Amino acid sequence: MKIALLLTGDELMSGDIVDSNSAEMAQMFFEIGLNIHCKVTVGDDRAALASYMAELTQHHDVLIINGGLGPTQDDLTAEILAEVAGVPLAEHPEALAHLEAWCTQRGFELSPANRKQAILPAGCDIIPNSRGSAVGFNLSLNNCQVLTTPGVPSELRIMLRDEILPMLKAHAREGILFDKMMTFGLGESRIQQMVSDQLGTWPRALDLGFRAGMPLLEVKLRSHNEPVLHQQYLQKLKELLGDHIVAEGHANLAAIVVDLLKRRGESLTTAESCTGGRIAAEITSVAGSSAVFNAGFVTYSNQMKTDMLGVAPATLEQHGAVSEETVIEMAKGALSKSSSHWAVAVSGIAGPDGGTEDKPVGTIWIAWGNNAKIKTQRLHLRFDRQGFQRLATAIGLDLIRRELLGIDRTVSYFSRYKL
Amino acid sequence: MKIALLLTGDELMSGDIVDSNSAEMAQMFFEIGLNIHCKVTVGDDRAALASYMAELTQHHDVLIINGGLGPTQDDLTAEILAEVAGVPLAEHPEALAHLEAWCTQRGFELSPANRKQAILPAGCDIIPNSRGSAVGFNLSLNNCQVLTTPGVPSELRIMLRDEILPMLKAHAREGILFDKMMTFGLGESRIQQMVSDQLGTWPRALDLGFRAGMPLLEVKLRSHNEPVLHQQYLQKLKELLGDHIVAEGHANLAAIVVDLLKRRGESLTTAESCTGGRIAAEITSVAGSSAVFNAGFVTYSNQMKTDMLGVAPATLEQHGAVSEETVIEMAKGALSKSSSHWAVAVSGIAGPDGGTEDKPVGTIWIAWGNNAKIKTQRLHLRFDRQGFQRLATAIGLDLIRRELLGIDRTVSYFSRYKL
Repeated sequence: MKIALLLTGDELMSGDIVDSNSAEMAQMFFEIGLNIHCKVTVGDDRAALASYMAELTQHHDVLIINGGLGPTQDDLTAEILAEVAGVPLAEHPEALAHLEAWCTQRGFELSPANRKQAILPAGCDIIPNSRGSAVGFNLSLNNCQVLTTPGVPSELRIMLRDEILPMLKAHAREGILFDKMMTFGLGESRIQQMVSDQLGTWPRALDLGFRAGMPLLEVKLRSHNEPVLHQQYLQKLKELLGDHIVAEGHANLAAIVVDLLKRRGESLTTAESCTGGRIAAEITSVAGSSAVFNAGFVTYSNQMKTDMLGVAPATLEQHGAVSEETVIEMAKGALSKSSSHWAVAVSGIAGPDGGTEDKPVGTIWIAWGNNAKIKTQRLHLRFDRQGFQRLATAIGLDLIRRELLGIDRTVSYFSRYKL
Repeated sequence: MKIALLLTGDELMSGDIVDSNSAEMAQMFFEIGLNIHCKVTVGDDRAALASYMAELTQHHDVLIINGGLGPTQDDLTAEILAEVAGVPLAEHPEALAHLEAWCTQRGFELSPANRKQAILPAGCDIIPNSRGSAVGFNLSLNNCQVLTTPGVPSELRIMLRDEILPMLKAHAREGILFDKMMTFGLGESRIQQMVSDQLGTWPRALDLGFRAGMPLLEVKLRSHNEPVLHQQYLQKLKELLGDHIVAEGHANLAAIVVDLLKRRGESLTTAESCTGGRIAAEITSVAGSSAVFNAGFVTYSNQMKTDMLGVAPATLEQHGAVSEETVIEMAKGALSKSSSHWAVAVSGIAGPDGGTEDKPVGTIWIAWGNNAKIKTQRLHLRFDRQGFQRLATAIGLDLIRRELLGIDRTVSYFSRYKL
């Protein structure tokens, strides 16, 4: 089945909006074995819309049009599609009923502008929109199934999940198997190297895919009618990636750490220098994190490492702020001041300035543990300031994840230091 | 001048990458008065590439092709373009010299795979790439100027600035005027409302544009050969937006606050509950922030508000953690514990749980000031947890910005409370 995408909106052409809708669609389609063959983006431009509607329907089985369903004069999808299909526009009773219900729910009067959203090509079927005022619709043109969808990402996402995917699944190939894993600590090229070094020639029947989302990397396996091979390689991949697998399906490190702590009824505190509050911010971005987190210490200056966490001035003087001794004292101080079960402490040189020959920019010491035992690790992360801070935050969370899961193996992450 | 864009790469079709290159190009073109007429995205697919290269060059003056210049077999741009143009492929001496220099600089041997990047359509001119191994090139096809560019965003950005924009400027209309301002605290629809209420009928000769970047909103004004009208409306816009204008050109709130503090030789501390360290993290993301920031307090629990900042238990009991009294004591405690000149303190209900009738989810109290005076504001931010936290962080920074600039006006931000 050959699928094309036609995206419309002046805001897409001016660069005022980065199109994430098409990537979202492609990801969802990939999981059921469908690929998008091509996508065309045009502004709110009658001639361009008409010409690509005609052309794309001639060469594809399905055309998904995204955007242009709103109430303003710029929203042209229904009008131009009717013109190209050679059918009149007519008020669609179901679309009108949806609009009336939508307005009533919000205490609005149905305005003439909104009412325009029920004027659709005669004979089309509507595609329900459970979130917004604009329904999608569905008609056949040049033997191609045309589906129109709203440009608002949250409305599109639900319409895709509830309406479009079930519709397309009926036409999709059967026997598609799909699995994905979220990993941390290995780059895409490193994993590809490991796969080719350790798993030999990769079977042509299996698609191995990657999606980089800072800081996690999604590893995807897809196949068609090869259940034995698929399971075999899924198992091999799991063994290869081992404890770098953070979760199967969607996940974020902070949510996993919060969940692990909740199950144990334990708490975590943070003592941050170079990450400047980012680890605490990640943890508290998780709803319900107050059950496992009561305080974080952002000790940016040496003086405040001493005042807030009780780091000995002699330690700072002798070993420096970026040292094993200092992060251990920071972790111990945070444990004692907050009465938490676990602590993670970080001190490093985010750059661009502040590096020395001995401790270049990118050097970071991390300490983590509890009152019984504090572990440490030194890393060298060669990224710009923002990348360094984001990655150091993720590594701090991953070290706690490993600790809570009892994984004792040391990981070099993306460090330049050999371990 | 009619410009089309052809983007290529399987990773764009699978949704593994969200295309930000085309938005970047469109933004740059807009500033010199050029618009992109349409863009087409296809995978590494010979037939699709050939067919769109032929079609788009027939209907446009300029076609920019992005991607497909790399060293692998999937990188097809040069090969297919030569085929469509009916010219042979040949090793381009300048491209080869660039590759050799690039390898020498990095201590690599020039590999056969890399050498492929110098095999270009005969007769083309190269477009230098100062960052990467792949040069772009430039040829004429169907009377259309075809420019090829690398897919790597950092390489593309520099090639656009140094090579492509100067090339297009020669063909662009003269007399384009462009100005932009970064604003905070007003939404796009609110600004449009203010413009139509207070500036009357908008002149057709002026383009007013918006680009939402959380948390700042960019407001853009563009015109052609209308210098008097342009200046007049630029002035009107500046008066209308007033102290909501954070900067002209690019900016971020934290960098502005750090800069204002540096100039005064003063420092800032943070006392955060619902934002969980995010304000401190924003400040410390600015290089050189250690000159103005020495500590931040993340006091998530009531107990730690007392232990770390000295908030009286009676205050918490009587008024609650989300109250004017509590944030004032948090700010005072942070000032005294860190010996900073300025403090900002926030406490609110990020949700989804924890709201009451009196203090619904989204309620937030903010205190800011110095030892001489602490001011406070209550807001109600109706966003999801993440949106609430990001916006509360930005508002905290903006309140400090206004304070440091001596702006005394109260702003309702995006709050539901009438002020």
